[in-house]
Amino acid sequence: MTEPIRDIARIGHAELLTTEPERSLAFFTDVMGMEIESRAGQSVFLRGSADYLRYSLKLTEGPTTGLGHMALRAWSQEALERRVRAIDESGLGIGWIDGDVGHGAAYRFTDPDGHELEVFYEAERYVAPEHLRPAWRNQPQRVGNRGAAVRRLDHVNLLAADVAACREFSQRVLGYRLHEMVRLDDGTESGAWMSASIAAHELIYTSDAYGVRGRLHHLAFWVDTREEVLRAADLFLDNDVHIEFAPSKHAIAQGFFLYGYEPAGNRVEVTTGGYFVFDPDFEPVVWTQAERARGQAWYVPTVSTFHTYGTPPVG
Amino acid sequence: MTEPIRDIARIGHAELLTTEPERSLAFFTDVMGMEIESRAGQSVFLRGSADYLRYSLKLTEGPTTGLGHMALRAWSQEALERRVRAIDESGLGIGWIDGDVGHGAAYRFTDPDGHELEVFYEAERYVAPEHLRPAWRNQPQRVGNRGAAVRRLDHVNLLAADVAACREFSQRVLGYRLHEMVRLDDGTESGAWMSASIAAHELIYTSDAYGVRGRLHHLAFWVDTREEVLRAADLFLDNDVHIEFAPSKHAIAQGFFLYGYEPAGNRVEVTTGGYFVFDPDFEPVVWTQAERARGQAWYVPTVSTFHTYGTPPVG
Amino acid sequence: MTEPIRDIARIGHAELLTTEPERSLAFFTDVMGMEIESRAGQSVFLRGSADYLRYSLKLTEGPTTGLGHMALRAWSQEALERRVRAIDESGLGIGWIDGDVGHGAAYRFTDPDGHELEVFYEAERYVAPEHLRPAWRNQPQRVGNRGAAVRRLDHVNLLAADVAACREFSQRVLGYRLHEMVRLDDGTESGAWMSASIAAHELIYTSDAYGVRGRLHHLAFWVDTREEVLRAADLFLDNDVHIEFAPSKHAIAQGFFLYGYEPAGNRVEVTTGGYFVFDPDFEPVVWTQAERARGQAWYVPTVSTFHTYGTPPVG
Amino acid sequence: MTEPIRDIARIGHAELLTTEPERSLAFFTDVMGMEIESRAGQSVFLRGSADYLRYSLKLTEGPTTGLGHMALRAWSQEALERRVRAIDESGLGIGWIDGDVGHGAAYRFTDPDGHELEVFYEAERYVAPEHLRPAWRNQPQRVGNRGAAVRRLDHVNLLAADVAACREFSQRVLGYRLHEMVRLDDGTESGAWMSASIAAHELIYTSDAYGVRGRLHHLAFWVDTREEVLRAADLFLDNDVHIEFAPSKHAIAQGFFLYGYEPAGNRVEVTTGGYFVFDPDFEPVVWTQAERARGQAWYVPTVSTFHTYGTPPVG
Repeated sequence: MTEPIRDIARIGHAELLTTEPERSLAFFTDVMGMEIESRAGQSVFLRGSADYLRYSLKLTEGPTTGLGHMALRAWSQEALERRVRAIDESGLGIGWIDGDVGHGAAYRFTDPDGHELEVFYEAERYVAPEHLRPAWRNQPQRVGNRGAAVRRLDHVNLLAADVAACREFSQRVLGYRLHEMVRLDDGTESGAWMSASIAAHELIYTSDAYGVRGRLHHLAFWVDTREEVLRAADLFLDNDVHIEFAPSKHAIAQGFFLYGYEPAGNRVEVTTGGYFVFDPDFEPVVWTQAERARGQAWYVPTVSTFHTYGTPPVG
Repeated sequence: MTEPIRDIARIGHAELLTTEPERSLAFFTDVMGMEIESRAGQSVFLRGSADYLRYSLKLTEGPTTGLGHMALRAWSQEALERRVRAIDESGLGIGWIDGDVGHGAAYRFTDPDGHELEVFYEAERYVAPEHLRPAWRNQPQRVGNRGAAVRRLDHVNLLAADVAACREFSQRVLGYRLHEMVRLDDGTESGAWMSASIAAHELIYTSDAYGVRGRLHHLAFWVDTREEVLRAADLFLDNDVHIEFAPSKHAIAQGFFLYGYEPAGNRVEVTTGGYFVFDPDFEPVVWTQAERARGQAWYVPTVSTFHTYGTPPVG
Repeated sequence: MTEPIRDIARIGHAELLTTEPERSLAFFTDVMGMEIESRAGQSVFLRGSADYLRYSLKLTEGPTTGLGHMALRAWSQEALERRVRAIDESGLGIGWIDGDVGHGAAYRFTDPDGHELEVFYEAERYVAPEHLRPAWRNQPQRVGNRGAAVRRLDHVNLLAADVAACREFSQRVLGYRLHEMVRLDDGTESGAWMSASIAAHELIYTSDAYGVRGRLHHLAFWVDTREEVLRAADLFLDNDVHIEFAPSKHAIAQGFFLYGYEPAGNRVEVTTGGYFVFDPDFEPVVWTQAERARGQAWYVPTVSTFHTYGTPPVG
Repeated sequence: MTEPIRDIARIGHAELLTTEPERSLAFFTDVMGMEIESRAGQSVFLRGSADYLRYSLKLTEGPTTGLGHMALRAWSQEALERRVRAIDESGLGIGWIDGDVGHGAAYRFTDPDGHELEVFYEAERYVAPEHLRPAWRNQPQRVGNRGAAVRRLDHVNLLAADVAACREFSQRVLGYRLHEMVRLDDGTESGAWMSASIAAHELIYTSDAYGVRGRLHHLAFWVDTREEVLRAADLFLDNDVHIEFAPSKHAIAQGFFLYGYEPAGNRVEVTTGGYFVFDPDFEPVVWTQAERARGQAWYVPTVSTFHTYGTPPVG
């Protein structure tokens, strides 16, 4: 038996493209309650109160919506170099960039579906300015006092034309562990839930209903309690944020969720809960098409757009 | 058996005096999350998102802290007149005032301890401006998106040199129902929890440790869940609000609480829960000194200042 | 202006008929967590931990399902007599019965839809046996430690062929206050939410989709927190209780809900929350057909059976 | 830079000694809501609903209280062998045992304070019997329906005469990561919070006030929400379980807690929350004596027995 790969610590940040930069920014600051940490070019860098890095969301004005890129932080310089070699060997490497606000050199690559990813190690740890300094210094920042006051970026769900290829790449090349997956009656993999830690999921691939490559399903932001997810739904409602899927509990990963669309149309989740995987030999749970048809945890039918809508929009 | 008096609907608002008007206002808007509904003279009128009247807190600059006055809303014009006659007969009436922001003629009086009270009926129901309009029109306002986002003034706790006299006046003249009380070993009444509704308490009198008259123990503001009380404690902490008594559950009335001091020193509670009194013949629960010494619901010892501190400060 | 009628304190208990007495009893004790207080004939009398009377649910074996009867407790003997006279004058009186387990003489009558109701005053207050004695004597019983551990019967929703007639009878003859109602485009009243207290609803009438008389929509049992409603859904799920409508928030009355069918098919709700009506002149909220079509609070579509299913079943 | 040691997956189970086997068992089944998975000799093996192994608590009758032993599960057979070699080299190894209910060969050793530990790899994954089978097969068992319904053993806090030695051993020999520690003004380490995962703590050492070796501070059991911790306090209260420290939030690790003593006197925690450590280079937070004196998160003073009481009792 070979040792598991444990070189990726976690998603460091995701870049979200918006065609409505001002309205999107207002959503993330006023409704989601994030703080603006920095601005550069057409981008605003945003953080939740529990993000240990300077930011977890890079919001960038663009000609369309969807994912700009997703950045993974390695455990060490050696771990970074090992992953770069593996990516390189996979043939999906692009090359080094000098870095960006808050982090050093990063190696750019794509997954088999064409999403742009990067991996980095050197990064600046967040130091709160006076007005955001927390009472206890084991916390990076004081708690948010606006809107849903999300704590951090939790996980990313990418749409893929070929889920199996992306899942296999994530496991073999990046070292993600597979926790749950869906295999349709015809053998197609339609979803894969993976993690680099004991969290049930950090990286998800699900089928793009249009067979298009490189699209985004959603970015998920963490709050500490289900009550805060329920409260976020009230805030979405009263602030005219489109609620796609009202608060309920997922069957897969068992997380509690709320899905809405930010003003430019990107799907955003407010989430908490989910189980932990403490078993070193955890056997991935493979769901059948029939099981998947039972809906979410309490048999709530999945909203149909949840299986079809992504950004950028199609057609 | 005589019919119960049911002429008082509820506390309409309380006026709080502050020697730190700007800092107190910042506390009530940013940390408590209330909205400014109006301003007049040295006063700012504030509301929670579920207050059906225009405001429930009148914050007034003054030479000291404590209660300005407390206003009770009657069920009807006839109910108002009945109570005014009863107050008049008690010898504690002062006289009519023309009204104030948001309500019509009010009859001013004092309780036996000298707290200034008023009773009114005519009042303006709140109509939210566009930016605060709720998604559902059975709600007066959209949910708050700042700080603890309190919902409404819930109850008022007055300190009294003679609790028994105030309790007796509240029952006989105003028509409050007594739900719980504390009688010390020497026969002294040291606390009375009363209500005009099924809520376990709306009006509380507790002993002034200094035997001073007319002081305030606290104003309590409602949130819908215990999780929001816990979150309010985080907000108090990180915003340098003095926490006097951290979240826990009361033995009396069983409400969940958080107590802090607003910047001018007035004690403020964030509260939820508590039992309902559905029994028409509810027998008031009389606690002994020994029972009271057991502390709060989970035997948490009561913080000593809770029995002594009030506003304005003494000595 | 005439004085409001305030003679009814609250629903004392509801009798539920079951064709599966053992399985229904196991549901109410093991999944809902109620205590058996007494048994008599074909009936078992059950209570939640916060019921101040001996029981709130009379579960009776019968040839079919649905409501046996619903019993209202009056505020006093005089209040009882006033209501009996009013009912008598309405022509819907049946006559006195001697009483039942836990309460004295009751006057039986029907609402215009034929549901059997009774009103009583004399009743035994619950005294917990040693093994259920609470730590604090302002509580009737210790908290439940099985299943959902519901606290008390909260409200009753009756189906009616003629909602308007039932609503009008409840207001004029019984003294209920109307808080919300639905009026369809053709002028038909299809729902009425009424209360005898500050709770947003205690008695609901909604349209029977089949035009049948005397059926039951659901009995609702209270828990103190939304988290307990969510937990109840997990318990329903894992104990094979049919979940009809998974946890979410109502638009009307704003209560948080979970609906399931107990083993004999009667619909049961686990509920908490909802707003309070403190306004003496509260103007009933009249919803249009279009507004109603928006679904529940977060625009969750109402499950179709919710509008059609009742007990006993039809056809 | 050397690669981090990541050979220990997690604490598999802890053995608790009791002088009151029947009453302790009743506590863990009825109040904590655990299931009896097996019995052997003087021991009962208990599990929470989310434990993936067969059990996490071995409750053993003994002449005194405290920790029997604590068992760590390795990531793999190779990881086990690496750790056994390292332990052996440390001079604290005892030797192999054949295994126990639910797991295979284990290597016994002590920490520098003399607590008996073991490390194993081969283990039986839990398979729920029919009456405990969950609705979704990504869960090991249906949710608990008795008492506090704890989910799993979360962490263990050992008392030590020499915290620094135990902390150093845990890091260097076992591979735990240090997240927080307390260093008194005289340079003594009085507490260390360590983890083998992103959880803020899984293994804690704190100073034994009596300088005695090998004692237990507490075992902590996880529930998914803070509301369940609050509800557990009600259950402790009404079931005469001694509450030592009522629900509140820790400053260190930020977990939400409730501490009580099971009938034989061992301290037990019901816990949830706490932050996650996603930073690969997380710098341990070293608290000063002055900071520690601020009490818990909301400045709640730490109950004095919390710093002195452990099992077995002293003197």
